[in-house]
Amino acid sequence: MLNDLFIPADSKILLVVLDGLGGLEKNGKTELETAKTPNLDKLAKESSLGLTTAVDIGITPGSGPAHLALFGYDPLEWEIGRGVLEALGIDYPLKRGDVAARGNFASTKDGIITDRRAGRIPTSENQRLCKKLSDVIDMIEDVKIHIKSVKQHRFVVIFDGDGLSHELSESDPQKEGNPPSVIKALAEDAGKTARIANRFVLQAQEALETEGKANGILMRGFASLPDLVPFDLRYNLKAAAIATYPMYRGLARLVGMNVLETGSTWEDELHTLADNMDKYDFFFLHFKETDAAGEDGDFERKAKLIAEFDLLLPKLLEMAFDVLVITGDHSTPALLAGHSWHPNPFLLHAPGTALTEGRPGFSERFCARGVLGQLYSLEVMPLLLAHAKRFKKYGA
Amino acid sequence: MLNDLFIPADSKILLVVLDGLGGLEKNGKTELETAKTPNLDKLAKESSLGLTTAVDIGITPGSGPAHLALFGYDPLEWEIGRGVLEALGIDYPLKRGDVAARGNFASTKDGIITDRRAGRIPTSENQRLCKKLSDVIDMIEDVKIHIKSVKQHRFVVIFDGDGLSHELSESDPQKEGNPPSVIKALAEDAGKTARIANRFVLQAQEALETEGKANGILMRGFASLPDLVPFDLRYNLKAAAIATYPMYRGLARLVGMNVLETGSTWEDELHTLADNMDKYDFFFLHFKETDAAGEDGDFERKAKLIAEFDLLLPKLLEMAFDVLVITGDHSTPALLAGHSWHPNPFLLHAPGTALTEGRPGFSERFCARGVLGQLYSLEVMPLLLAHAKRFKKYGA
Repeated sequence: MLNDLFIPADSKILLVVLDGLGGLEKNGKTELETAKTPNLDKLAKESSLGLTTAVDIGITPGSGPAHLALFGYDPLEWEIGRGVLEALGIDYPLKRGDVAARGNFASTKDGIITDRRAGRIPTSENQRLCKKLSDVIDMIEDVKIHIKSVKQHRFVVIFDGDGLSHELSESDPQKEGNPPSVIKALAEDAGKTARIANRFVLQAQEALETEGKANGILMRGFASLPDLVPFDLRYNLKAAAIATYPMYRGLARLVGMNVLETGSTWEDELHTLADNMDKYDFFFLHFKETDAAGEDGDFERKAKLIAEFDLLLPKLLEMAFDVLVITGDHSTPALLAGHSWHPNPFLLHAPGTALTEGRPGFSERFCARGVLGQLYSLEVMPLLLAHAKRFKKYGA
Repeated sequence: MLNDLFIPADSKILLVVLDGLGGLEKNGKTELETAKTPNLDKLAKESSLGLTTAVDIGITPGSGPAHLALFGYDPLEWEIGRGVLEALGIDYPLKRGDVAARGNFASTKDGIITDRRAGRIPTSENQRLCKKLSDVIDMIEDVKIHIKSVKQHRFVVIFDGDGLSHELSESDPQKEGNPPSVIKALAEDAGKTARIANRFVLQAQEALETEGKANGILMRGFASLPDLVPFDLRYNLKAAAIATYPMYRGLARLVGMNVLETGSTWEDELHTLADNMDKYDFFFLHFKETDAAGEDGDFERKAKLIAEFDLLLPKLLEMAFDVLVITGDHSTPALLAGHSWHPNPFLLHAPGTALTEGRPGFSERFCARGVLGQLYSLEVMPLLLAHAKRFKKYGA
């Protein structure tokens, strides 16, 4: 239905994702309630609030499904493997039919994994090791092997050839004290890929034998590109993404957004936004650090980061987007030290088209009682398009 | 999707159903608002609140669908007839393929029903009559007939043979002043069962001819066992049910819960719970009397029963379940003297994983503005499993 309703407009939309924003209480207050957020609180008064559920009630989403849903792609329909995300995040030009996998450099002793991350070796070391592997492993059977460094212990392998399948089990047993698992075909036509992937693991282990910490590898998240309709075609929006962390750049690229070059700080991201304001209709602006603090179980750091975002807010408001959303992709309560199923605080600021709360305060509890009520993340894009006056009436 | 996400945990879940809990106002206050509930109000402050809709907006559910939904089985997919519920409620070992029907002993005069319940004859009288019928009716054609006493005027007939169907109309016209209806086949393959059921009614009426009050029978709710995945397999939970009223024991047994023996009072039920705490992961604890008071239109009695439950609450809290839900299956406002479509007050207490309301009060109105918002009963089980940390993350 959506497709028939689009009308052109010159409105501009900004979707700000504070990754893992939602939280749980410590001394009766969540991270968001604990943080000093005078600007957010004031903005909330002039905005509509609600809570969004990323995938389904009770379901804790990974970053992939959570962002896909926000971008309007049903995460239950489009499962996207870690390998694809990592490949896209390093700007690797993944083609339909390629199979990508996430690799870890790992420490092993007598065939048993002693550290799944090889002590988080420095990225420079990772780069040296990927070059070493690339020098000795080029083709296996008729399949070209691309080995690309990501960061610390993480790399990506792309299997590039005909008749490949991503339906494979993982070699990473997810626990130390075990040997790596043999990769198994999980579909009838995945035999060839399983054989090649196992051979790759063996050849890599041989090549790394003489290394100290990083003398093994683990593979997981075998995946291929999904066949989804790109963002600009789907919504008739010229869209750009600003994110520092590879996976989120990858996710944005996967749905067809233009991923902009940016620096590593939040201020850098804001500069990039200001510089490109004229060139796009839609911006996805991603801040990773709130999630990382939540994952680390660091309540105070997460609250402090939210307060830092609050200080940047006036600059965002100066840019005067027609529609501004500030939300999370999923909750990451410091108390749980991980993603959670709790719905996301959601703030929609659209002067002249959004109902306003009329009282200051941005928190899980204000959002739960907000005028938007509870939404699914999948409903966010239609809501943004509506407030951006990019939909015509349905029916006479 | 759910099935792939289960992880083991040693958390314990308690689902308390105060049957028909939700109500409507008299002098501006509902039954729940009228009842003195200091313990519930305090608990609400430390819990998440919401409202659940059992089947769909505007739909008044029977106890069967309302409980099935709470247990996570779509009540629109799984229609469960009264006959099956009654049979399970008396511990009758119903097999797949059996057809069970609810029977009433009734008073008739010249073939016209004068009392559909035969003056609610005592259960001992019911037992005598069931034995009398069983003595003269054993087989009809190749179908074995089991006649089992329930309570007062109510009994169950089980048709046990090959090629039977529950797609039958009822003989109970639901109104006095009419003759019993002829039972009709409602599906092509139900002809045999209709013939046998009508013959059963005739033979029973002949056998009861000489009785005083209970000289006729009425049959309704022809039903067979649904083919659903049992609770323990579906959720990876060892589950027990504590309920005094046969139908709810039957419902719990139908989804595969272990139904525990218990006494007839609420205190008895709590003792049974405490005694079995170690043996199960999940308990369904059912209190019937609130619904009965609502059905009787007795506002004060219903409020008093809620206050009595409030007095028992500290004992429940002492048991320190990881996840505790207090809710209704459907609303039964005394003002309507029957089940209603109004959503159910829902309280979720899960220290450390549930957001808290931060203000005291448990009522329909507090729940409507609670942090959980409005849910479907079908979403309750996923929510409980999440708070019990029995789900892993969906996607990377």
